[in-house]
Amino acid sequence: MNLDEMKETTLSSESIYDGAIINVEKDTVRLPDGNTSIREVVRHPGGVSVCAIDHDLNVYFVRQFRYPFGTVLLELPAGKIDPEENPYDAALRELKEETGLVATDMISLGQIYSSVGFCDEVIHMYMAVSVEQREQCLDAGEFVKVEKIPIAEAVQMVIRGEITDAKTVASLLKAYIILDQLQQQYEEQAQV
Amino acid sequence: MNLDEMKETTLSSESIYDGAIINVEKDTVRLPDGNTSIREVVRHPGGVSVCAIDHDLNVYFVRQFRYPFGTVLLELPAGKIDPEENPYDAALRELKEETGLVATDMISLGQIYSSVGFCDEVIHMYMAVSVEQREQCLDAGEFVKVEKIPIAEAVQMVIRGEITDAKTVASLLKAYIILDQLQQQYEEQAQV
Repeated sequence: MNLDEMKETTLSSESIYDGAIINVEKDTVRLPDGNTSIREVVRHPGGVSVCAIDHDLNVYFVRQFRYPFGTVLLELPAGKIDPEENPYDAALRELKEETGLVATDMISLGQIYSSVGFCDEVIHMYMAVSVEQREQCLDAGEFVKVEKIPIAEAVQMVIRGEITDAKTVASLLKAYIILDQLQQQYEEQAQV
Repeated sequence: MNLDEMKETTLSSESIYDGAIINVEKDTVRLPDGNTSIREVVRHPGGVSVCAIDHDLNVYFVRQFRYPFGTVLLELPAGKIDPEENPYDAALRELKEETGLVATDMISLGQIYSSVGFCDEVIHMYMAVSVEQREQCLDAGEFVKVEKIPIAEAVQMVIRGEITDAKTVASLLKAYIILDQLQQQYEEQAQV
């Protein structure tokens, strides 16, 4: 099957909910075989996360109560992108608000699509390798505890299943593999 | 702040949408500081994914049109857990349906929480290292193209940002790091 032939075409779209953070719609679509089906879609403005690493290779985490799970989770600093805000600026802002860290430079760790079956949320992931500690300045109603963990230990916590938040798992493992590959390139060049 | 003190308490819950795949609710909660706030929550039955690897270290992917993004994405075989079904059986079933592969054994790659701010979806990730090819048996209305990619190349596609689906990124990188650690242990033991 040609990839173009997999396309689903919107026949009608019904707005179910117009919320503060998410919108929900229920669409009727034409499938590639000509039949129709329903697609429930959650629309989200998108988010950012930052894997901030200090000179001793510690990663900064936040512990935060997450209402859908009714529990406190360990995550990278993260948040929604404000209207008109670009992802890079949103990442700098969320890092500063939640941890008090100011990043002098960040590199992109790419994007993840949180749940492609029913939701259009994209999370823009960054890595900050040069950070300065200033004051935390949480939003009203935000309760966050900051924690530093060595990156090698954090990766093992992911492997052992102790870190489960998708953006945190994806960012940490990408950062770890990228840093490992850079280290190997550096060692190879040093041997030449 | 004590972690128990971060807890948010449900004051009331309003059902917004009772759908085929998702339910949406709008809850009023009491925050740790005594103020109230709104929480929009998408409830999802949970899903599974399988990182199936053959003897030549190729990983099986599916290309599938994803309506929320209006495009075809490259993902690991995956799907929702049926009512009364356990995650392991759901993973075996989805792998068989989407790729025609029968896994004789699978190990857990843990769970990810897709989007912890507003959604309770949990994806149970598995790795299958022994698979047999049978016939694909897609659900009605499901259009999926199977593709094999060497695991090292797939990991580089993640690093380059060419694979963005969260469960696929998390599963692949976890599988890669676990296999790498096993390989190192094996080499160390062989040297003793």
